[in-house]
Amino acid sequence: MSDLKPKFMEVYSMLKSEILQDPAFESTEASRQWVEHMLDYNVPKGKLYRGMIVILSYKALKEGTELSNEEFFLACVLGWCIEWLQAYLLVLDDIMDNSHVRRGQPCWFRQPKVGLIAINDGILLRNHVTRILRNHFKGKPYYVDLLDLFNEVEFQTSSGELIDLISGLERENYSLPVYHRIVEYKSAYYSFYLPVACALLMAGENLDKHVKEKGIFIELGDYFQIQDDYLDCYGDPEVIGKVGTDIEDGKCSWLVVKALECANEEQKKLLYENYGKADAECVTKVKELYKVLDLQGIYAEYESKSFEKLAKSIKTHPSKAIQALWPICAKGRSMAVKR
Amino acid sequence: MSDLKPKFMEVYSMLKSEILQDPAFESTEASRQWVEHMLDYNVPKGKLYRGMIVILSYKALKEGTELSNEEFFLACVLGWCIEWLQAYLLVLDDIMDNSHVRRGQPCWFRQPKVGLIAINDGILLRNHVTRILRNHFKGKPYYVDLLDLFNEVEFQTSSGELIDLISGLERENYSLPVYHRIVEYKSAYYSFYLPVACALLMAGENLDKHVKEKGIFIELGDYFQIQDDYLDCYGDPEVIGKVGTDIEDGKCSWLVVKALECANEEQKKLLYENYGKADAECVTKVKELYKVLDLQGIYAEYESKSFEKLAKSIKTHPSKAIQALWPICAKGRSMAVKR
Repeated sequence: MSDLKPKFMEVYSMLKSEILQDPAFESTEASRQWVEHMLDYNVPKGKLYRGMIVILSYKALKEGTELSNEEFFLACVLGWCIEWLQAYLLVLDDIMDNSHVRRGQPCWFRQPKVGLIAINDGILLRNHVTRILRNHFKGKPYYVDLLDLFNEVEFQTSSGELIDLISGLERENYSLPVYHRIVEYKSAYYSFYLPVACALLMAGENLDKHVKEKGIFIELGDYFQIQDDYLDCYGDPEVIGKVGTDIEDGKCSWLVVKALECANEEQKKLLYENYGKADAECVTKVKELYKVLDLQGIYAEYESKSFEKLAKSIKTHPSKAIQALWPICAKGRSMAVKR
Repeated sequence: MSDLKPKFMEVYSMLKSEILQDPAFESTEASRQWVEHMLDYNVPKGKLYRGMIVILSYKALKEGTELSNEEFFLACVLGWCIEWLQAYLLVLDDIMDNSHVRRGQPCWFRQPKVGLIAINDGILLRNHVTRILRNHFKGKPYYVDLLDLFNEVEFQTSSGELIDLISGLERENYSLPVYHRIVEYKSAYYSFYLPVACALLMAGENLDKHVKEKGIFIELGDYFQIQDDYLDCYGDPEVIGKVGTDIEDGKCSWLVVKALECANEEQKKLLYENYGKADAECVTKVKELYKVLDLQGIYAEYESKSFEKLAKSIKTHPSKAIQALWPICAKGRSMAVKR
């Protein structure tokens, strides 16, 4: 998988050049420089797993036959569309969450001169996805399906983000069902379903036939989001690329949902009083309660069981496109997830 | 035109219901209520001119023949897509501009409990456009062209917004060419080209054949944006639905661009020192200079000349779809523009 990365990065440079010279907009020198810097800062800085899933899945669907240069290139382009989409989501999420650090660097909106211009930059990133799709797929028989796919998944993601945001307004409602619903819509579809679905469309498949497979994407989404939530509290900031603030921000994290499930009335009261406050003392009280409730132990048990289950589901899955997720999944376990 | 509005509003209610029951997302009761309130607050509150242009243009293209119920309905649906797009742009613009009032009510992000959740609400509004298009146009021969059209125009709009935002960082560059470029991309295409292009697609036309017509949309965009800029400073807040803050915000307004064009070195210095500061004394100094330079007189002369020219261009335009813009244009002149 690691030998994919340099070739994948080459495609990024090409797509960036196209965007900067898009004939639909007469750039100024200043706007071209702005967009180039904004792209370099936000798009190719993650682990690129989502993007590379497209290539791995497509290869698996073409079992045995070597990909042509064009096929490999187009799979990379779709992979980058997902990375661009992800950049758009993260740029805007970070503003809404008032975050400080992302992928080991200050959040984009915290850069000098950027501020709330970052909202429009997020929108630009989103618009670049449709420009890229148009530039490289218009005329393909599955072009309209690609547009529909990205539109549907983006709608699901922003709808999931909404329940995440408004559930934060009334924390008494935090529960495992609410948690799973948020993860399913906010993260599982765009992270796992979307790249596999891109590969399926490229391979000429009809997505309606694959509706039943959504369960595996939800399982994957849950596993990685729960890992992410755990690392937000217990991970090494150097490794995860950010300083976790889920407790201060009052996030509907797996940890607080589990804590509420295990806590007695007195402990619940303590949680409601201290969770979601940007006050070091409150954070310490929450972390102490997590310790009393042995959330690290509960996580360790959950993690090993669910990873085993996930491994089995993927390796024995009838679809080759999904079996191809295994290396990503294994690597995602061994590395801390930077999102 | 006024008899159109009640029928147009009926279609809004229907589209809203569909969105609230969209099968791609399992809403919670709280999220359904949130979205309904957010839509009612933001979508049907403007003058609805952009939306109604689709109907007027389409009727003109079908000269003589009565529209079928389905045709009328579909033209309304496309009209609402543009109003939804507009709502999305305004919700986000107001956050970036730190505005207070829009269409006679507090900006959405200033509503209690909303705040920066409004960013995601903007994204949702944008996603609703593609859901509506899919629900009502998938299967039509021009469906993919509609998606491409909305995508292209949105890309142009956000690219125009970028040059507006970054030009604000270095006000020494304000000039008429910069101004016209911003208006063309940020406002003319989505306000005037998009609704006419929707009508053309519905009528089975190929948009590539109409590329030459973009000049008229830019002329319209300029006329109404310059009116908007003028009213920001000299309009009655009761009528225009907002308290203008272009001077405080340092906007690249037609007024400041004209002022810089007419000012001597000393007056330019005064402008650079006082423009873009949220300080009542600075605003007064800028307004005094505008008076000295007789910007109201310059505007009055510009307005009457350019309206005459615009009227001629529209009334004698070879395309019936564009001639149909005349009532909107005339009404837009007589009323203050609320955007």
